[in-house]
Amino acid sequence: DGRMGMIWDGEDIQMHSRARAKFTMTGETDSGLSFGGSFRVDQENYRADPLHRSAAKGTAGSVFISGTYGKLSMGDVLSAAEAAMGDLPELGYTAGEFAGDPEEIDYLTGDGANENQGPSALYEYTFNGVKLFASLSDGSQRACDGTVGALGCYDFESDKDSDLAYSVAAGYEFGAYNIALAYSKWGDQSEIMIGGNAAIDAFKIQGFYAKYDNRVVGNEIVGDDDFGDFDLPPGAEYNAAYGLSVGYTLANGVGLTAEWITRELDFNGSKWEGAPDNFDAYGIGASYDLGGGATLAGAVMKNELYGDNETRADMGVKFKF
Amino acid sequence: DGRMGMIWDGEDIQMHSRARAKFTMTGETDSGLSFGGSFRVDQENYRADPLHRSAAKGTAGSVFISGTYGKLSMGDVLSAAEAAMGDLPELGYTAGEFAGDPEEIDYLTGDGANENQGPSALYEYTFNGVKLFASLSDGSQRACDGTVGALGCYDFESDKDSDLAYSVAAGYEFGAYNIALAYSKWGDQSEIMIGGNAAIDAFKIQGFYAKYDNRVVGNEIVGDDDFGDFDLPPGAEYNAAYGLSVGYTLANGVGLTAEWITRELDFNGSKWEGAPDNFDAYGIGASYDLGGGATLAGAVMKNELYGDNETRADMGVKFKF
Amino acid sequence: DGRMGMIWDGEDIQMHSRARAKFTMTGETDSGLSFGGSFRVDQENYRADPLHRSAAKGTAGSVFISGTYGKLSMGDVLSAAEAAMGDLPELGYTAGEFAGDPEEIDYLTGDGANENQGPSALYEYTFNGVKLFASLSDGSQRACDGTVGALGCYDFESDKDSDLAYSVAAGYEFGAYNIALAYSKWGDQSEIMIGGNAAIDAFKIQGFYAKYDNRVVGNEIVGDDDFGDFDLPPGAEYNAAYGLSVGYTLANGVGLTAEWITRELDFNGSKWEGAPDNFDAYGIGASYDLGGGATLAGAVMKNELYGDNETRADMGVKFKF
Repeated sequence: DGRMGMIWDGEDIQMHSRARAKFTMTGETDSGLSFGGSFRVDQENYRADPLHRSAAKGTAGSVFISGTYGKLSMGDVLSAAEAAMGDLPELGYTAGEFAGDPEEIDYLTGDGANENQGPSALYEYTFNGVKLFASLSDGSQRACDGTVGALGCYDFESDKDSDLAYSVAAGYEFGAYNIALAYSKWGDQSEIMIGGNAAIDAFKIQGFYAKYDNRVVGNEIVGDDDFGDFDLPPGAEYNAAYGLSVGYTLANGVGLTAEWITRELDFNGSKWEGAPDNFDAYGIGASYDLGGGATLAGAVMKNELYGDNETRADMGVKFKF
Repeated sequence: DGRMGMIWDGEDIQMHSRARAKFTMTGETDSGLSFGGSFRVDQENYRADPLHRSAAKGTAGSVFISGTYGKLSMGDVLSAAEAAMGDLPELGYTAGEFAGDPEEIDYLTGDGANENQGPSALYEYTFNGVKLFASLSDGSQRACDGTVGALGCYDFESDKDSDLAYSVAAGYEFGAYNIALAYSKWGDQSEIMIGGNAAIDAFKIQGFYAKYDNRVVGNEIVGDDDFGDFDLPPGAEYNAAYGLSVGYTLANGVGLTAEWITRELDFNGSKWEGAPDNFDAYGIGASYDLGGGATLAGAVMKNELYGDNETRADMGVKFKF
Repeated sequence: DGRMGMIWDGEDIQMHSRARAKFTMTGETDSGLSFGGSFRVDQENYRADPLHRSAAKGTAGSVFISGTYGKLSMGDVLSAAEAAMGDLPELGYTAGEFAGDPEEIDYLTGDGANENQGPSALYEYTFNGVKLFASLSDGSQRACDGTVGALGCYDFESDKDSDLAYSVAAGYEFGAYNIALAYSKWGDQSEIMIGGNAAIDAFKIQGFYAKYDNRVVGNEIVGDDDFGDFDLPPGAEYNAAYGLSVGYTLANGVGLTAEWITRELDFNGSKWEGAPDNFDAYGIGASYDLGGGATLAGAVMKNELYGDNETRADMGVKFKF
């Protein structure tokens, strides 16, 4: 895929473009099981990027095998919760990135959240509109990121992370309505979520509510970067998040989407005690389908997690090749 | 592409080979605009290579959209000046690399020269043999290299580089003759160039003259690495460059090319004052087309920017796959 | 290719998966020479990975040209010894990695062993069942890893490594039997090997014996990492290695393989003098071909080079796409 356009960062216009390619590989066994794998080119940095995820280490991209018994995936897979509910819609030609991706729900496990345990596994099974999901990490990670036992990864004194992370979720689809429930746990931390979406005529509505227990975020806490990038005070607790989006599609290829998401934190016991600890993010986006895989898109968003609380915007064209 | 062969580095023979692959992706909108993107596999190092260019960050590879109104590209694009004039011919199987790429004209903007501003944009328009080019950077770069606003790139105190870089150029083609003029500016620095080429029977002749103002080169100066690699004294000024190449193609697939390029610097005010500050590079190359994308090629070059002033040579075979 | 499954590391179960892709490119000249190149996506880290191998630098992947006169390859090629004899069979779905790859014979040259000299070259020629191999490095490497002479790689005070590394080998194939002899040298170090394999009904038997002279291994010695990863005492000498494998293939796609390999070191003169200095590794593996490129495989191995001397196992599925 590719994209090019401009971002208003609150003070200046910034040009932004990118080009990427993805490998998708599939096969079928003699008995009819299908299998495959996929990763982007930029995810295959075997040795070059020891601190980040790599498809060659199982911490980016994924492989799967599926049959009548369901589908088993391993690698940088979604948690069961995210597989059941997804994120809110991405606005703008940079898919929300220009405003810090506020539409991404801060799932407790999976999709990179607990990548320091190496690959995660996700199992999915569907029957009669009922969708079941289960995901887990192996609850143990040696002091290396390669294949355990390989040269450079054979000698270990202690686990880097020994808290099993897992998630279970169920969804039910009836006509144009979907509803999903999920429970996730990682050591002491836990997450309960409910979500749903509905397609009514040209409208598409989506909402979710997530409750967290013992979820500590903030820069000095190892193991959760979702909020850490925003320089929250160490020790801040993440209590809950909820959001809603409404999309409307016109007949001529034009789409409009508005969304709003709130994150509730707790600064008690930190030096920020008393500061506002609810953070809203909201925005509106428009897109126009040019055909052939090209889409003109733009959005305006405000993400209160930004220190200067500024409004940001993007406008550009994105391509699917 | 690929290549294998040997390089004489002035003292020893060095074996050198490489293999690379490039992605080229295109599409077309319903209204007939064409779009696309391209990058080499080695240019897609998203996180692994924060200090260098990446197609995923818009600082390597490029994307474009084009129609009857012209062509707009964004990413690691050429400056308008380079798009209009190009470089002198590449000699040898390593395409001039064995001798420090003296054939590459040191354009002031674009093609990586001001990459710390993120992607650049290039616009091209052609009618009746007249070619118009304009390129620019956005004149602002936050203290991060990813998508502005994304996680890890949302908080910025000051611009890394706030000098707009731009270039305008025009070319005219009449029969086998081409002539081009260009003007580029980056902060205080400026570049005026004139160039042309002609194909007369089996001969191909190319020449250029470039005049720089306030262009400071040397290792301690941030923002221009073209000369910096050659350990020029800090504060050295780059005044002018000019060069000429003559190629001759025989009927049997053999080609011969000779070229010469001079770079005029000014060491006044530095401790090197009085040292020779004109640097010539010259060489001769031969190639033989083996068909099917394989070419046998070799060259001998001398680049006075090398401290030991030695003559270097390469000989090998290069492949197009 | 891809794989997913679990590894028992002696204390815990570790999930492991990966996905990779490889580029293979070929062409043919007008006179009928064939040429090509290949590398994996993860091997193409041009700038990102200055300390490791890259296909763009000629130290991973390879390019070749071949005709009736034989085949010449350059890049990260095998040594002549390894090209003639190969390694013992890889057990398990991680191809021996879960146990430190004990099946890989510690060849003195090639295949990454002397990569700090840049690309190596390998020449192969076959006639009437006789196979001849010769490989060498260029015996000189400047203090940079790119193309010699290129920007950032033009100035050098001294060689990083000036010991020529080379290897010669011969093999003879008669019916289902193969036998091979090899001699390799790298500076003062040398290697003499004999090996062979035979396919008798459903059995496949392979064995080798290698004798080393002046081969010093251990962490503080630059230039040989094969043993260094296992924290041998500096100054330890590697005297000999020998091994044997027996494989048996059943008609239904099930394969069984057992193998054993011994490495003889000498700790005299080090503080470990008197400690056991023979290291065995042995194991048994099973595989079941699911068809379409998918294989279920598992193995149990013990590698005495591991400090805790623990038994390790893996079990999973591997894919060829």
